[in-house]
Amino acid sequence: MDPGLLAGPDLLAEWEGIRAVDHHCHPLLRWPLELTPLRFRAVFTEAADPVIVREHVPCTVAYRGAVACLAGALGCAATEDAILSARDGEDPGAYANRLLERSGTGVLLLDHGFGGEAVFTAAEHRQEISLPQHEIVRLETLAENLALDVGDPSEWRQAVHAGLRAAVEGGACAVKTIAAYRSGLQLHRHSPDEVAREFSRWRAAMRRDGDHSSESTHSRPRLTSKALCDTLVFEAAACCRTLGVPLQVHCGFGDPDEDLALASPLGLRPLFEDSALRGLNVMLLHCYPYHREAAYLAAVYPGAFMDLSLAIPLAAVDGARALREALGLCPWSKLLYATDASRLPELYFVAATRQREALATALSGLVDDGFLSGDEAVEAGRRVLAGNAIALYGLRPG
Amino acid sequence: MDPGLLAGPDLLAEWEGIRAVDHHCHPLLRWPLELTPLRFRAVFTEAADPVIVREHVPCTVAYRGAVACLAGALGCAATEDAILSARDGEDPGAYANRLLERSGTGVLLLDHGFGGEAVFTAAEHRQEISLPQHEIVRLETLAENLALDVGDPSEWRQAVHAGLRAAVEGGACAVKTIAAYRSGLQLHRHSPDEVAREFSRWRAAMRRDGDHSSESTHSRPRLTSKALCDTLVFEAAACCRTLGVPLQVHCGFGDPDEDLALASPLGLRPLFEDSALRGLNVMLLHCYPYHREAAYLAAVYPGAFMDLSLAIPLAAVDGARALREALGLCPWSKLLYATDASRLPELYFVAATRQREALATALSGLVDDGFLSGDEAVEAGRRVLAGNAIALYGLRPG
Amino acid sequence: MDPGLLAGPDLLAEWEGIRAVDHHCHPLLRWPLELTPLRFRAVFTEAADPVIVREHVPCTVAYRGAVACLAGALGCAATEDAILSARDGEDPGAYANRLLERSGTGVLLLDHGFGGEAVFTAAEHRQEISLPQHEIVRLETLAENLALDVGDPSEWRQAVHAGLRAAVEGGACAVKTIAAYRSGLQLHRHSPDEVAREFSRWRAAMRRDGDHSSESTHSRPRLTSKALCDTLVFEAAACCRTLGVPLQVHCGFGDPDEDLALASPLGLRPLFEDSALRGLNVMLLHCYPYHREAAYLAAVYPGAFMDLSLAIPLAAVDGARALREALGLCPWSKLLYATDASRLPELYFVAATRQREALATALSGLVDDGFLSGDEAVEAGRRVLAGNAIALYGLRPG
Repeated sequence: MDPGLLAGPDLLAEWEGIRAVDHHCHPLLRWPLELTPLRFRAVFTEAADPVIVREHVPCTVAYRGAVACLAGALGCAATEDAILSARDGEDPGAYANRLLERSGTGVLLLDHGFGGEAVFTAAEHRQEISLPQHEIVRLETLAENLALDVGDPSEWRQAVHAGLRAAVEGGACAVKTIAAYRSGLQLHRHSPDEVAREFSRWRAAMRRDGDHSSESTHSRPRLTSKALCDTLVFEAAACCRTLGVPLQVHCGFGDPDEDLALASPLGLRPLFEDSALRGLNVMLLHCYPYHREAAYLAAVYPGAFMDLSLAIPLAAVDGARALREALGLCPWSKLLYATDASRLPELYFVAATRQREALATALSGLVDDGFLSGDEAVEAGRRVLAGNAIALYGLRPG
Repeated sequence: MDPGLLAGPDLLAEWEGIRAVDHHCHPLLRWPLELTPLRFRAVFTEAADPVIVREHVPCTVAYRGAVACLAGALGCAATEDAILSARDGEDPGAYANRLLERSGTGVLLLDHGFGGEAVFTAAEHRQEISLPQHEIVRLETLAENLALDVGDPSEWRQAVHAGLRAAVEGGACAVKTIAAYRSGLQLHRHSPDEVAREFSRWRAAMRRDGDHSSESTHSRPRLTSKALCDTLVFEAAACCRTLGVPLQVHCGFGDPDEDLALASPLGLRPLFEDSALRGLNVMLLHCYPYHREAAYLAAVYPGAFMDLSLAIPLAAVDGARALREALGLCPWSKLLYATDASRLPELYFVAATRQREALATALSGLVDDGFLSGDEAVEAGRRVLAGNAIALYGLRPG
Repeated sequence: MDPGLLAGPDLLAEWEGIRAVDHHCHPLLRWPLELTPLRFRAVFTEAADPVIVREHVPCTVAYRGAVACLAGALGCAATEDAILSARDGEDPGAYANRLLERSGTGVLLLDHGFGGEAVFTAAEHRQEISLPQHEIVRLETLAENLALDVGDPSEWRQAVHAGLRAAVEGGACAVKTIAAYRSGLQLHRHSPDEVAREFSRWRAAMRRDGDHSSESTHSRPRLTSKALCDTLVFEAAACCRTLGVPLQVHCGFGDPDEDLALASPLGLRPLFEDSALRGLNVMLLHCYPYHREAAYLAAVYPGAFMDLSLAIPLAAVDGARALREALGLCPWSKLLYATDASRLPELYFVAATRQREALATALSGLVDDGFLSGDEAVEAGRRVLAGNAIALYGLRPG
């Protein structure tokens, strides 16, 4: 082989045999389903508003790029209609499994705490999707479910600890917090008095709500108190450390239910500085546009890891650019592959494809610029696609 | 035609016939004027300090690039002297109109609340400049002018509402707030008591000032109270929604009278989350270096729009890079062309040229990377240059 | 000469004769020293944790790039072992001086307030290293040393002023503050009462500590009170202005002892807005990932200067990208070359090499894009490498 080629290997080809670990994604929509254009477009945006889905998603690079990407894979024209027609008459399960298989993902780590009745349960998902799967426990959902049956914050924390332990013993491989959607990521320790006060207030609101709508749990007052949310994250962090599973933290980019201004991962510093939490692994999810900040944390704290899921593919070429920026400080031993995909197999495929492309582009550029050898780039990619997740989550190599 | 060319169309050529809508700029300096080198340089910086203008502006990429750009257009040497000589002996009006004509801008939306006596009034500007023009009302100026004649915050808000309505009925096509220069963009609702207290304090200061300098309005105490500024923005937002005009908000980059740390558009979230404001359109101006944040807002809220005026041309190549970054999340149906130019026709020309170049570079790159077809890129540019503004401001297509 | 070449000069070759001024670096480790692989890796990270050094530094672009860079310079294989072997058997002083000589740096401005006993004192450093050297006074160290011998904040401030004056009269060319590591850069004026209270509290803690560990000064309570740290910075700013030396401020990227969320240079605005400080020069060090914000300050305030030391080389290609971003707003008359190197001559060499490369890449790109002429790019580089520092620090040209 021409040694000159070592300087610029075809990384995508080198990684073809790697079954990637998608360490953060969500379940698919139940089938059969009627896939309208609007429902198709809706998976390519974080907006919930129908005006965005109808008028603006078709004017995004992410969506047009997704259509182009799917057209290539499905052998059809690069139009919405053609993509939608391509799945017509196909068995939805066979179609989904084929796209997931082609995506190069080999294992799914699933957060089921999102999507409600419209998506498969964990048991159904295993039955319908042939890829190996593991579950992620969603912290706030668990903590909200436990709050009515306990008397005070201390009992609540114990119940949360017990609940997380049971989940991990039942096979869960990580705990995920969406504190960014509740009171933001600027973590502080709060006094026991304040926590007790806030807990009583929240409980009272829950009981009032329970009286009025005893059959529904949907309108239950959400956990949003900063004192309680922060306390819960610290408790979960201690549990994760003890149980030996990572704490996944939603950072940065997400839907507008969150205030992006409060979602910088730099607010998580107390998790890394507290010596009692030494050994805890914190997985910073999404991160964009705070990816340079996340990369900094990953560079200086042994327990900090990051991904650019969701930003790739939804921020399109800027997601790929963010990956290149993150590789400034972030060691590739701390960077993980993930899609954050949900609902439609088309999204898993596009997200997976864009993740690999972005990684190949970033690492090839580093080879071209003389920072890495070709072999180093190939090996770095192996770790990002699978090796780091296998080690972090204690998975058996595929 | 070679179909291969479709993959990389010459976008600047494709857009040549498009008369762009400059939806945010300022009036020109009155002529005749003596254009010294320092006065020429001063339009290519946000600094007010003469040391910056004299010593540092000539060492900026924006300025050197502007000289190069103008030299090309004027057919002279790429030096300050040559540019200045090129307009010598020319009729200033003919010269200005010719440069504006060549800039490709077809309509000007003008904020006249800046520049004082040195610049043309709206009436003069229409007379001197042949391009079609519309006015933008500056919120804080209007609200300050009305404050002395009212008794309390409620009357003040009513007067503001009436003033904005009159302005819109008189032809104004947008309201602009410079809250970023006053108390920052972290909007909050304030209690009526606090608003009343602050209003009394401000009024007292105005009266004291009025006693001392009854003939001048220049030294009048500016509206800077956070409670009042925030309240005013919420009031203006409600008016704009009712009147059907966009609220333009200065975000990010500006002159040092503002604290850039307080100018992130993410602080405007309450405008988008308040269901009473549903239907309001908010135009985020400038945005740099918070353009990824602005793009996020544009991606998830139907009423959020953005531009990179001022940053292009003043942040030079990084302004163009910011545009590429913004096109990660921002739909091109939400991105608008604007120059924020003021004072000298040379600036309008350079800003307009750099806006088109940056847009062409960004969209061409997306075609090259397979995200967009050539036709999609051409169409995206049409919308950014004119279509989006025509729809947003209810203009008649040119 | 082919005039076409003027469009893209080989900038590195053009600058070959320029002896650069490294206006911010630290002393070398004493020799002889036993250089283990871990000790070698440790200089290429801001992490203090041995897990990072052992497992993750080898997976960083900065480290692999450093090995590649050194291999080229030393004529050995691009492996850690080969680099370490290359210095075996060499006289450490000769080896260090040779690498420093080859780095292109001609003058060192040294912050000796870091590294303790393991590094050379200022006197030793002059003796061992043949390059001309100047010292930088570290503000917080000086102020902590003076606090026990004074009675109140006013005396403390006077003692600090006297101490800085003595240092400058003794040859120091700048004052450096690490307020970012203590209470952050969001500077405010604090009331004399609050300052007095905080001073008493700190002094009491110092005395208690003094009783227990009278022989050691290491465990002395650090100055971390926000009121005291801010007051100290304002005092130092006034002194620097009077003494005619720049105030260097650590901004952004650093080791995890600092909270990066508090390290944006935008918090320094009061230093630029206070008319009593007019004429003060503030040197913003490192800046990444707040380099666009630093560039903004440099663009609008005559007294603001910046560098990308530390980020280049540690943020690898993203450090170089940050330089390109900074050149959007920052005049090249405000941008300075520096390495922030310390401990091992290998780091000085790599950092210096990467600084020049990044500058050449950034400026060449601007020539290619038609913003600068080749001559302008050559001249801009001269200023960044040496001219700006010679003027700012009042050095004699080399």
